[in-house]
Amino acid sequence: MFITLEGIDGSGKSTQAELLTENIRSARGEEGVIWTKEPGGWPGGDSLRKVLLEGSLHHPLTEVFLFLADRCEHVEQVILPALAAGKIVVCERYSDSTVAYQWGGRGIERGKIEGLLSWASFPSPDITFWIDLPAEKAYDRMVSRGSPRDRLESEGLSFLSRVRQGFCTLAEENPDRIVPVDGDGRADLIASEIYRKVEEYFFP
Amino acid sequence: MFITLEGIDGSGKSTQAELLTENIRSARGEEGVIWTKEPGGWPGGDSLRKVLLEGSLHHPLTEVFLFLADRCEHVEQVILPALAAGKIVVCERYSDSTVAYQWGGRGIERGKIEGLLSWASFPSPDITFWIDLPAEKAYDRMVSRGSPRDRLESEGLSFLSRVRQGFCTLAEENPDRIVPVDGDGRADLIASEIYRKVEEYFFP
Repeated sequence: MFITLEGIDGSGKSTQAELLTENIRSARGEEGVIWTKEPGGWPGGDSLRKVLLEGSLHHPLTEVFLFLADRCEHVEQVILPALAAGKIVVCERYSDSTVAYQWGGRGIERGKIEGLLSWASFPSPDITFWIDLPAEKAYDRMVSRGSPRDRLESEGLSFLSRVRQGFCTLAEENPDRIVPVDGDGRADLIASEIYRKVEEYFFP
Repeated sequence: MFITLEGIDGSGKSTQAELLTENIRSARGEEGVIWTKEPGGWPGGDSLRKVLLEGSLHHPLTEVFLFLADRCEHVEQVILPALAAGKIVVCERYSDSTVAYQWGGRGIERGKIEGLLSWASFPSPDITFWIDLPAEKAYDRMVSRGSPRDRLESEGLSFLSRVRQGFCTLAEENPDRIVPVDGDGRADLIASEIYRKVEEYFFP
């Protein structure tokens, strides 16, 4: 019972991850679900998250390797133990982000990225919600938030559009796993739509 | 003019890197040489070094990815600019360490590691000094130092022996690049031997 939420920055993933976790918690109790995120969602992961989001990185492959290292520990220390304990895992960003950002956004060869993901034997999500929003709207949201933007959020609109296109391709190729969700609407209605799909999927 | 020093922990690399740098400095002036090291030898690299040497890492591939990310930035921010400026680069640990530790020490498939090193297009050293010491002696040195040992240094004697065997194989396969140096002797005599080789190689 491994659920991931994906989407470009500003699409509303964090809000939806929180609401989904609350909804599952209401139905199954406090102990039945964990909410986690990448990068940095493991004990000791903060310093790696800091390097990734605040560091000044110059080589085109540094990000790929850091995200993979981060996922290795996240999977091993957090996701697999929670799944083994029978919990539902709600995870914000996962391997689809790596493909969409590094291939779509950065232009790194897709086969190489997917080869590494497969070499690391990361568990595959049962279901992935792709919160989709036009890049322009997501960008406006980020700008109006006014909070200091991190390294990836500062990449600009055309980068965000390429990443979104990456998610589009992944969703088209994986219709059985990836559920596209229109992120342009009221958060509570989007949350209901997502939770309904989770119920259908896991508790039919 | 890219020189690397390799060897197991406790073999005396740091001392030799320092002495070699001093010797080159005496001959070519302060500006002619830089001394650097992995992991962490780039601006911002300290936090990554900390994760690598002090973190509690559980997944077998995390180290590989972190060392590669670290090398990406080290190469891009430090080594290539110094080489472009005509400096001699003396670097403590580099790609041979990744192969010897991850393949020899950890048993990760060698082809995968070398594939990643080649994908990242790291510059190849002109000459590599492998400071060789029996694992038992290096281990005794580390123990008698008494300083708190980092995560890799705490792996124990049999790990160190496997890593040394990894370096042996690399040296046998690359006789034109890797110069084995007997690390069991007076530091100043070893330094003279290394500097003589550097002179022969670079200033014949």
